Amino acid sequence: MDGNENTLRRLRTVEGHLKGVIRMVEQGEYCIDVIRQIQAVEAALNKTSTQILENHLNSCVTTAIKGNNAKERERVLREITEVFDMSTKV
Amino acid sequence: MDGNENTLRRLRTVEGHLKGVIRMVEQGEYCIDVIRQIQAVEAALNKTSTQILENHLNSCVTTAIKGNNAKERERVLREITEVFDMSTKV
Amino acid sequence: MDGNENTLRRLRTVEGHLKGVIRMVEQGEYCIDVIRQIQAVEAALNKTSTQILENHLNSCVTTAIKGNNAKERERVLREITEVFDMSTKV
Amino acid sequence: MDGNENTLRRLRTVEGHLKGVIRMVEQGEYCIDVIRQIQAVEAALNKTSTQILENHLNSCVTTAIKGNNAKERERVLREITEVFDMSTKV
Repeated sequence: MDGNENTLRRLRTVEGHLKGVIRMVEQGEYCIDVIRQIQAVEAALNKTSTQILENHLNSCVTTAIKGNNAKERERVLREITEVFDMSTKV
Repeated sequence: MDGNENTLRRLRTVEGHLKGVIRMVEQGEYCIDVIRQIQAVEAALNKTSTQILENHLNSCVTTAIKGNNAKERERVLREITEVFDMSTKV
Repeated sequence: MDGNENTLRRLRTVEGHLKGVIRMVEQGEYCIDVIRQIQAVEAALNKTSTQILENHLNSCVTTAIKGNNAKERERVLREITEVFDMSTKV
Repeated sequence: MDGNENTLRRLRTVEGHLKGVIRMVEQGEYCIDVIRQIQAVEAALNKTSTQILENHLNSCVTTAIKGNNAKERERVLREITEVFDMSTKV
């Protein structure tokens, strides 16, 4: 199973989890339990992002840094910084 | 539209957004763009949690604090502390 | 030791930890180790915030909700929602 | 001013901010205001971490990836993944 398949599998699991949360709200379940499940969904999404980043570092980023295109190198490194910065905000 | 309907509407929008992220991965779109969309999904989930908490504070929590059941009061307040604590971790 | 003393003790520990991080940077220690220590400082700050919120819920918030001032009740509940919302962003 | 000096300047500003938070607690200021200031300190720490990571990507990481030591390359990339993962938890 390559990285992409693994990511898809994780995201489909998150989708199932989220459908479960929607059902909880439809059935009027207790607010705090809904919030806890939403937080669990977010933790699963964080793990997925980390895994995607790991694949990206070992493929595109490594290729760009070894390559001769300085602009491309700067771009991929700036993107890592940007997603790290955003990860501290969500 | 009551709080519950509003929450459901938000969660269904998040579900649509998440399906879009899954399609992006299926089509092999750029890793960083996928991570950014996952972060956007998380930001939307955070807003939903905040809205659910707001409703909860104005209903269950207020009722419990005005009520005479000390254990129930403690429980609802402890739950708020717990979801706040968890929110700093996801 | 009351809640305030406990908060002060925690914050002074965080201050000592932060001074240690500053020394690490002055001595040119490895970037990733510095980032890890900054993340540890943030985890300690999160725990402190949670503890302050817990005290606040059991004192001011409980008093306001039991009181007769509707505006004051709304204000304290809105503040809880606001700090929860912010906690998902830092 | 190099990256290190910039980081030190930021961390010393955070230290001053934190001392201000300690004074607020000593003077018994309002809990929610203290929590808001702690959240501001954390936002400043996040910005500092992002800046340190940016420098690190453009120096150590770039050197390691261009180098011939496969173990070293793996190590620096794994570290990026680890601090990203942790950043979603604090």
